[in-house]
Amino acid sequence: MAKQRIAIVGLGLIGGSLARRLANAGCDVTAWNHNDRPYATAEADGIVCTPTLAALADGKPDVLVLCNPLKAMPQILGVLKPLIDQTATTLTDVGSVKGMVRDQVKAVGLEGCYVGAHPMAGNELSGWESSDPALYDDALWAITVDDHTDYRRFLAVAKMVTDACANRLIVLDDATHDRCAALISHMPHVIATAMINELVVNPNRNIAAALAAGSWRDMTRVALTDPERTRAMVEEDAANVELLLRNMANRLTLMANVLHGVQAQGVGALQTVATQESDAREMTRFFAQGQPFRDYRAAMQRSGSQKDRETIPLEIPTEGWQQMLLESARRGEHIIRFTDDHAVDVQIRSAV
Amino acid sequence: MAKQRIAIVGLGLIGGSLARRLANAGCDVTAWNHNDRPYATAEADGIVCTPTLAALADGKPDVLVLCNPLKAMPQILGVLKPLIDQTATTLTDVGSVKGMVRDQVKAVGLEGCYVGAHPMAGNELSGWESSDPALYDDALWAITVDDHTDYRRFLAVAKMVTDACANRLIVLDDATHDRCAALISHMPHVIATAMINELVVNPNRNIAAALAAGSWRDMTRVALTDPERTRAMVEEDAANVELLLRNMANRLTLMANVLHGVQAQGVGALQTVATQESDAREMTRFFAQGQPFRDYRAAMQRSGSQKDRETIPLEIPTEGWQQMLLESARRGEHIIRFTDDHAVDVQIRSAV
Repeated sequence: MAKQRIAIVGLGLIGGSLARRLANAGCDVTAWNHNDRPYATAEADGIVCTPTLAALADGKPDVLVLCNPLKAMPQILGVLKPLIDQTATTLTDVGSVKGMVRDQVKAVGLEGCYVGAHPMAGNELSGWESSDPALYDDALWAITVDDHTDYRRFLAVAKMVTDACANRLIVLDDATHDRCAALISHMPHVIATAMINELVVNPNRNIAAALAAGSWRDMTRVALTDPERTRAMVEEDAANVELLLRNMANRLTLMANVLHGVQAQGVGALQTVATQESDAREMTRFFAQGQPFRDYRAAMQRSGSQKDRETIPLEIPTEGWQQMLLESARRGEHIIRFTDDHAVDVQIRSAV
Repeated sequence: MAKQRIAIVGLGLIGGSLARRLANAGCDVTAWNHNDRPYATAEADGIVCTPTLAALADGKPDVLVLCNPLKAMPQILGVLKPLIDQTATTLTDVGSVKGMVRDQVKAVGLEGCYVGAHPMAGNELSGWESSDPALYDDALWAITVDDHTDYRRFLAVAKMVTDACANRLIVLDDATHDRCAALISHMPHVIATAMINELVVNPNRNIAAALAAGSWRDMTRVALTDPERTRAMVEEDAANVELLLRNMANRLTLMANVLHGVQAQGVGALQTVATQESDAREMTRFFAQGQPFRDYRAAMQRSGSQKDRETIPLEIPTEGWQQMLLESARRGEHIIRFTDDHAVDVQIRSAV
């Protein structure tokens, strides 16, 4: 395939790192940012910067990647609508929630050329100054589609991921993506924030902070990121995060109740034998339940690098390809390359 | 001061690393383990291994450090009671809960020669094979005392920390220690475990695991450690962990309620304006509350290494030294060296 012509909107940490990685891979990369501060260094990195969104769209890029903050999405989509050549250009984005972005794309009538995307890359930094093409090393992308997604559009975005970025991908619907993102990112951010909130109101907070070792530091690291960004992320996935927070509150309350029973056992016969046995069972269950994830992580570490894993060829049908690829993702398979427009190699990661 | 003669009970990760660090520092180190598997390599590291606890105690070490698992504590204390020369030897331990250990020490009548200790060192590994003297690099120890603690005994343990280990220390009572350890370690372990439990019951668990990036990995790392060890740690600090889990459940439920309101705003006029404003206020409060901890961490990173910090001399009174040193710890001061038996240098870390 000829090198793709990619346009990037927003040269922050995610967009800047992507632009630089694509330029390094030999793609023809253009970019627009809401201010021109990154332009001098970006141009030095081989990224052609444009003064306006109109100039960016006029270049008729194969793929236009929206890397702007989610809160700017409706406005930018509104500006782009009359500018994009929808036949020539496929529109995608890198937002951490996918259902809301598709709704916004539909609201301006650009859904015909849209495919969603979310690269699992990032760190606690932000801005062009922090951008680094290596941020995407071995990254997995979620590509989100719906029943109406044009396969050719999917292919344009997917090949940008596998060929230009040398990354892996899985194909999901928006709802599945947003539920999973809530579980592994948005809900944990809320929990980390609640933990530092709990510390600051403690009269022994300085002692606690002094005693804090790796477990505390690791678990609260994400609470140190820009709280306004976290707030936006959580609000944008509110329904999924709400459900998971209630599940987590129930799990913590159940363990609190069991620990209450443990103390009662300690001080005497406040509990019946049946209650004691039930508490002990709950305690054992709580600490055993996650074992499949421990086994999964141990297997992941044993299995070495991605390159060592067995690859399996997969044919992609022209009808029902969305559901077929979702099932592949559920089995733990990642698409690592296209061998043909309707054939991929997948690698199975250890399954939970 | 002459090099101390230190005896170590239990050559696991914590005890083994300590024994090797003390031997490196030129101390006369003896050790006993419940099996002799580590003995050959330990002897090669300059640690004299004894076949029995009796042989260990017979050496009349200045300090005997119990590094055995907490569940073995009552039995080992029972065996040691008639063997220890209580005049010659000061007894200490490295357990992660301090109130319970003091109770066990009192139960066998060894409280007269006991000082509690808890080095903030460790990782997800265990066993002699994983031991490493560098595990204690820049470690902070909590030394726990009560109103009856003999100052001379405190001094023996404290100088082992500052002189032989080249570590820092703070002085606490057991209750303060256990409340703080629950906050920064035991409660987080339960939360990390609840998080992996939440993942394994999710039908999209393989997709979630695939999308998991740094935030999920960091926040669940401690859930990968031996769940039986975590269970024991949590049960031993049950009352403090119970309280914190209920606080955390309340914080998560409050945020879930606010997120429920956010969705209601999205779909229309299900909320009154007053409720919307109250939700927005709660949301802002939630993400702002922990700011002092973010500022503290930022200041810690700016202030560079411990060595760069200003040191302050502190006189330790003969009466009321326990409370005076606890207040020093609350101000964020760490003892870095003794300049005299009743004088120390402290360093102030950034305060929360």
